Amino acid sequence: MSNYQKLHQHFARINDLHHVQAVAGWDEAAMMPAGGGEARGQALATLDVLIHGMVTEAGVADWMAGAAQEQLEPWQQANLREIARLYRDATCMPADLVEQQTLATSRSEQAWRRFRAENNWQEMAPLLTEVVNLSRQEASVRADASGLSRYDALLDTYEPDMTSARLDPMFAELKSFLPGLLDEILTEQEARPLVVPGGHFPIESQRLFGLEVMQTMGFDFNHGRLDISHHPFCGGVPSDVRITTRYEANNFVPALMGVIHETGHALYEQGLPADWRDQPVGQALSSGMHESQSLLMEMQACRTREFLHYLTPKIRQAFAGEDAAGPASSEDNLHQLYTRVNRGYIRVDADEVTYPLHVILRYELERDLIEGRMEVRHIPDAWHERMQRYLGLSTEGNYRDGCLQDVHWPAGLFGYFPTYTLGAVTAAQLFAAAREQIPGLMSQIASGDFSTLVAWLRTHVHQQGKFLGFDALLQEATGSALDVSHFRNHLRGRYLDGAA
Amino acid sequence: MSNYQKLHQHFARINDLHHVQAVAGWDEAAMMPAGGGEARGQALATLDVLIHGMVTEAGVADWMAGAAQEQLEPWQQANLREIARLYRDATCMPADLVEQQTLATSRSEQAWRRFRAENNWQEMAPLLTEVVNLSRQEASVRADASGLSRYDALLDTYEPDMTSARLDPMFAELKSFLPGLLDEILTEQEARPLVVPGGHFPIESQRLFGLEVMQTMGFDFNHGRLDISHHPFCGGVPSDVRITTRYEANNFVPALMGVIHETGHALYEQGLPADWRDQPVGQALSSGMHESQSLLMEMQACRTREFLHYLTPKIRQAFAGEDAAGPASSEDNLHQLYTRVNRGYIRVDADEVTYPLHVILRYELERDLIEGRMEVRHIPDAWHERMQRYLGLSTEGNYRDGCLQDVHWPAGLFGYFPTYTLGAVTAAQLFAAAREQIPGLMSQIASGDFSTLVAWLRTHVHQQGKFLGFDALLQEATGSALDVSHFRNHLRGRYLDGAA
Repeated sequence: MSNYQKLHQHFARINDLHHVQAVAGWDEAAMMPAGGGEARGQALATLDVLIHGMVTEAGVADWMAGAAQEQLEPWQQANLREIARLYRDATCMPADLVEQQTLATSRSEQAWRRFRAENNWQEMAPLLTEVVNLSRQEASVRADASGLSRYDALLDTYEPDMTSARLDPMFAELKSFLPGLLDEILTEQEARPLVVPGGHFPIESQRLFGLEVMQTMGFDFNHGRLDISHHPFCGGVPSDVRITTRYEANNFVPALMGVIHETGHALYEQGLPADWRDQPVGQALSSGMHESQSLLMEMQACRTREFLHYLTPKIRQAFAGEDAAGPASSEDNLHQLYTRVNRGYIRVDADEVTYPLHVILRYELERDLIEGRMEVRHIPDAWHERMQRYLGLSTEGNYRDGCLQDVHWPAGLFGYFPTYTLGAVTAAQLFAAAREQIPGLMSQIASGDFSTLVAWLRTHVHQQGKFLGFDALLQEATGSALDVSHFRNHLRGRYLDGAA
Repeated sequence: MSNYQKLHQHFARINDLHHVQAVAGWDEAAMMPAGGGEARGQALATLDVLIHGMVTEAGVADWMAGAAQEQLEPWQQANLREIARLYRDATCMPADLVEQQTLATSRSEQAWRRFRAENNWQEMAPLLTEVVNLSRQEASVRADASGLSRYDALLDTYEPDMTSARLDPMFAELKSFLPGLLDEILTEQEARPLVVPGGHFPIESQRLFGLEVMQTMGFDFNHGRLDISHHPFCGGVPSDVRITTRYEANNFVPALMGVIHETGHALYEQGLPADWRDQPVGQALSSGMHESQSLLMEMQACRTREFLHYLTPKIRQAFAGEDAAGPASSEDNLHQLYTRVNRGYIRVDADEVTYPLHVILRYELERDLIEGRMEVRHIPDAWHERMQRYLGLSTEGNYRDGCLQDVHWPAGLFGYFPTYTLGAVTAAQLFAAAREQIPGLMSQIASGDFSTLVAWLRTHVHQQGKFLGFDALLQEATGSALDVSHFRNHLRGRYLDGAA
């Protein structure tokens, strides 16, 4: 066996462990009774240690060095590059730092559930300080290993090759037009009254309707499932993708778009290159690219007049006998429901216009925290100040709906937030390219035909895995570099110019 | 750390891998879409190899030798004994034999699904021959390592310390009275006509009723679930026990007893010693003891007049509006439904009177196959001859309902069948002891109170794990050695003397 083949075999075995990790993780969220949690946590921790040990074991460095001298095909070269990245990211972290982080974030995440409910910043702050201090150490270690700045070194673990220097101008542009655009949209919206669906929409009816929409979008049920969890997500493995949602019995609106969003993620996973799925290069490219696939489906394709035209009679049929058949489910009203914009406190409830502002706020704070330009005690004031500036809302004394609303920081996830908005911007650019390249795309969507769109995404995104980097992929797919104007045009078109 | 502590820690890690293996195995049977099978099989195979590697790794032998010199508590000594058994059973098998078996049984199991459906013995025979030849090799290897005879060496992997020499007299006794008893029962039964439930029993109603009965029996839903699978089983881990059943929409009778049976298994798992669950000594004792716990609940406690008296109004209520409220669900008729005896071809459909005859037939054949006293080509005739002798049925030319009905042999499981009947005999003996030791037990069961019975089983069986061997446990719990007379008395009492 060549050195490359040894690496290939080794990382296929690691992938098998990721497989059972994914299944056990999905199970924990969607199936496991509470009493199973302690043993499950222990089992998953052991699996983590085992995987870490396999990624970093002595042979890997030798095989990498040897493989670098061997004749490799382009995908093998890309695979070697991704293996080297995994090796670097795993070996650079000292075991005692990882252990301290595991303990601190577990403590802080658990405390967060209580302190958020209690609006208790005072007691949360010291726990968060500990997590931030450890994340700063992690950032330093990763910065040394990668040559990146400290914040960029964390960002890089979710979004390879993305940096603050590239995010800053993008976010500056968004900040330059979003607050004004929001004012315009809210004024425009006032004229249009909204009927909110009332009544009881049985969860089983909602579930069956969700399955129907997934089928329409091209979800492969021979390789995946839909289930319920408190926090919706897309998990499992490419050969068996598990998406989840949650239902409100008195409103079918949120679960439906939730299912569509997760189906966008799922189509990406199901479309990953079949021959490379067991290797690092065959995985999804990045968090931002993943989010672009869910947002492309949810925001670009499915909240359109065209798709809602297709959906309206089906919604009426799915909830026949319920109150959906009333004025709430007219095509016009459904379109309004699915394109309503609000100034709100909560990121996860935000619409696509305000969402980037929520993200930019967090990005600016976490970057300063990690770079040491800000301390945890300054978070509430900084949050309040930016919420006023970006969204015109005060969070003074309201930590629950302010700086305590997200689990990310208590869980030690710094560098993740920007990928949501990178995804939104990328989705708009990819969809604009798809519309240009696929004649009649919107008519296809108006008749519930996603096949050409999905085939286009398969070719340009899904089947690329990590072969191309983010920039190269976008260039190949759309003919240009990352460009916020598509997102801006999309928002203006949908919310002000009356386009879909 | 002492050598014993190192062993303890090492086997706790192995237990964590068994945990994810159990979750992924349950998922495969209860949740996974077909398309996920190939990758799942691959992942589970890698996990197997990894676990095997950890059980047999170099340090284990040294730690065992060292621990043998250390001062150990009784449970630690028992744990060391069980670790030594695992080590012996894992190290004795050559890797190439394991690999050949994996391939051959996978091929043969898949072919069996088709050839059974086609009643095609001719094409199944060569595949089965290959599996038998490999199992003979395995038996030789295990016999060399353990000092047991070849068949006993396989039996020992499911039922430690059980041997043919002990099974033979037990089975001889059963054969001496069961065929005659069966005739008597069938004659007696003829006088009593039976009303089979008709109509439609919604699966959701059956499921909810199953959950209610599980609750009644003491199943802890904070540490377990009920789901659906094609072949009902009890899986998961002690902190999160997963049982499954299957439903027939036109008959509530089988699923209900199926759930009760699996709940018996589940109570055993949920009752394993909390402090030792992550170690070999804290696992369930053996296949036979496990089956005793399911059969004690199903056959000894729940098919009684007392429990059916408790259950009848609940069945009527659960299926109110369905046809269950008709004559089929009178208390008398339900009792007859749940104690009906039939001469049948199929083991898994057999009642408790004929079941041991199905098992003895298989035991006699597989013992002779493994010991080399019989060849695969002789199976159909030998099967037919014994079915006529034991049950008065011919299987000439009928392989589907004869020697091709079970997956065990195509899957390479030799030595497992006897544990079913060992379980039935043990269940009768344990329940007789419980009735003697718990005043008013049957009145408690008649009022749906299982708490004293479960507490008794917890003390005498569940919390023992593998601490005591089979014989010592039975002696402690019942005051005597394994004794078929309790099973015989149970059958005579229920089916001929009109007792429950």
